[in-house]
Amino acid sequence: MVGAGDDSFTIISVDDHVIEPPDVWEGRMPARFAARAPRVARLRDIAPGDTRVPAKMQEHIVQADERGTDYWVFEDVLIPMSGLGAVAGRDRAEYSSDPVNFEEMRPGCYDPAARIADMDLDGVLGSVAFPSFPRFCGQLFSCDTKDKDLALACIEAYNDWMIEAWAGYAPGRLVSLCLIPLWDPQLAVAEMHRAAGKGARAIAFSENPAWLGLPSIHDRNGYWDPVFSAAEDLGLPLCMHIGSASRSIVTADDAPRSISVALAPFSCQFTLMDWLLSDVLLKHPRLQIVLSEGGIGWIPYVLDRADYSWEHQGPWTKTPHKEPPSHLFREHFYGCFIWDPHGVRAIDDIGVDNVMMESDYPHSDSTWPHTLSAAREALKGFADEDVHKITRGNAERVFRFQPSAVGSR
Amino acid sequence: MVGAGDDSFTIISVDDHVIEPPDVWEGRMPARFAARAPRVARLRDIAPGDTRVPAKMQEHIVQADERGTDYWVFEDVLIPMSGLGAVAGRDRAEYSSDPVNFEEMRPGCYDPAARIADMDLDGVLGSVAFPSFPRFCGQLFSCDTKDKDLALACIEAYNDWMIEAWAGYAPGRLVSLCLIPLWDPQLAVAEMHRAAGKGARAIAFSENPAWLGLPSIHDRNGYWDPVFSAAEDLGLPLCMHIGSASRSIVTADDAPRSISVALAPFSCQFTLMDWLLSDVLLKHPRLQIVLSEGGIGWIPYVLDRADYSWEHQGPWTKTPHKEPPSHLFREHFYGCFIWDPHGVRAIDDIGVDNVMMESDYPHSDSTWPHTLSAAREALKGFADEDVHKITRGNAERVFRFQPSAVGSR
Repeated sequence: MVGAGDDSFTIISVDDHVIEPPDVWEGRMPARFAARAPRVARLRDIAPGDTRVPAKMQEHIVQADERGTDYWVFEDVLIPMSGLGAVAGRDRAEYSSDPVNFEEMRPGCYDPAARIADMDLDGVLGSVAFPSFPRFCGQLFSCDTKDKDLALACIEAYNDWMIEAWAGYAPGRLVSLCLIPLWDPQLAVAEMHRAAGKGARAIAFSENPAWLGLPSIHDRNGYWDPVFSAAEDLGLPLCMHIGSASRSIVTADDAPRSISVALAPFSCQFTLMDWLLSDVLLKHPRLQIVLSEGGIGWIPYVLDRADYSWEHQGPWTKTPHKEPPSHLFREHFYGCFIWDPHGVRAIDDIGVDNVMMESDYPHSDSTWPHTLSAAREALKGFADEDVHKITRGNAERVFRFQPSAVGSR
Repeated sequence: MVGAGDDSFTIISVDDHVIEPPDVWEGRMPARFAARAPRVARLRDIAPGDTRVPAKMQEHIVQADERGTDYWVFEDVLIPMSGLGAVAGRDRAEYSSDPVNFEEMRPGCYDPAARIADMDLDGVLGSVAFPSFPRFCGQLFSCDTKDKDLALACIEAYNDWMIEAWAGYAPGRLVSLCLIPLWDPQLAVAEMHRAAGKGARAIAFSENPAWLGLPSIHDRNGYWDPVFSAAEDLGLPLCMHIGSASRSIVTADDAPRSISVALAPFSCQFTLMDWLLSDVLLKHPRLQIVLSEGGIGWIPYVLDRADYSWEHQGPWTKTPHKEPPSHLFREHFYGCFIWDPHGVRAIDDIGVDNVMMESDYPHSDSTWPHTLSAAREALKGFADEDVHKITRGNAERVFRFQPSAVGSR
């Protein structure tokens, strides 16, 4: 078992990614939708500009694609798997957004047994994995799918697979993160109860539903209140992954790609400010929010800025908060980091109870297979108790997850 | 003189704002443009929806405006002065974006003698002031003005006024920050030489010209190279104020106003990443950049993130940098803060030679009239040498500014 004999360095990674295997929706959809379930096909004749491939994924089309590309086929769209989503084991110079087929990936991307073997290599005991093809909070089903009955069936099937086939393969190693139908709060609440009954431990939510064309968290009619109340009642943290609002930060059309890639986590800062200065947390005092892949080094600045802005601008903007908003962070939020040296030095300003770790397997920012040694290096000099909180204790508490060596090699 | 007997707490504020007095362009325009120069008129019949008022300023129109509103009249637009730009001396609960007329402002907003008196009250010895009506880097003239000959004449007149009437009133107290014609790099270089010859000490540049519809800093044809080279040759730092790309961060249309106000400085993080991962600084090793009103507490995180992203994503994104990009910060950038407790604690991670202070007079985030005591509190425990760098030394070096008590009461 990883970490045996060195309990203070047993890591729960609260942000990994699963590449859905082709059979996720097979046999898990109601009969009337079975023929329309998402499926994988190897296609050879897709040319750049093919309108069945969404605009944002056009870059993943390979011209003169003689070997064929694995596409997810669903409704009227074809969705390739970006090579950047499955780089584990590749040389950094070979990373590419070109599409990747299943046999070109490490099996740990899609197979739970192989994933656990890769976690063992990495010194990671527990893992929370976000969806890939449906996107980080299921935007594919919640926003793009036209037939909403079909979309709901796809979400239910994904959750069944996540709970039973993925996390269920090794309940002491893999934490179930489920999707909800964001287009209908009542359906979402029903699915939260259904999934929680089966063992779901967390919900993927959008870092900004307004940017998905959905009501914002500030909605005057309280659109999200039933969802937030259900999350409180069921003890399900909302995990908001960077990119779950489907908007990237692009400084200029001709800016080097490296810039939008480096800026990807910065949306998390907007999310935190958006929540801190809204009245949502005043109405939902038990809600728990995990800021997935957002890093932590910026958190003290955002809290200081929220408090200063509240003090100076609160009166004329009629902010309802009676206390500086930073205290809401400590009660509600968890910052997560892969590698963040200043963030680690700033943990006293963040709160040692509000920080978790990530491996980000199998993405291009991942520390895999060196997560354990990276953590040892990052947390050198920390008291055992604090190391325990950061590497696993906070995650165990918030995800109500009891890791065990079951399924470990 | 302020700071007398306590040299370590003499502050140069590198980010204040001047509300242009009505006579800036009077007598400073070539005869053929004199009749078309910007002027102030008190108008009574402007109703919300009047298309002469730019869309973003519609909120400043007061309905049933019986007292009349001071508008800048220029080409075919009417531009009111937002009350938020001139709050010095007001109670925070009375801050408002309603338009403000000249007699309702503290004279320090527009009159250099009164400004110096207000600086004395604030414990501020030197001040760099950004334009208001032309916007932070002169977007009004560079982007909106249709007749570019007229626009150039307006920029030259502004610079003459800034150098002669504003900074010239008290050259030991007020630092001249000039505008350039962003739409034509050759004209910009000519104006930089002309203004430098008259004593200009800095240039206002956009935090992201691409968002203004201009070529980006990454432009393959080197659009900005002559401007950056001139800035290097003339020793003129580029001051990039938050908001100088005319784009704010709005999380949702129905989000409380407090959120976009609190997020205003966050654009600065995009700017720093944009520059660190571009090749511009590899080509312009002497360029100096002041990140005005951006705060500093986030800088160590952005540097760490730039280095990590360069390490992981640099190879496949073909980043030209041979060393981790963070070193470019220390050679080129100055972070500026008003109130930033974590940032001050993080100065070792930022660099004590790369930090400056701001009062932000007369805006709503200003510490005026308590800037001196705020600085004393913020820098408690710092060595005198470091206090000197942060409060004035770095600014004196970068702006080539020798403060003196001339003009002080």
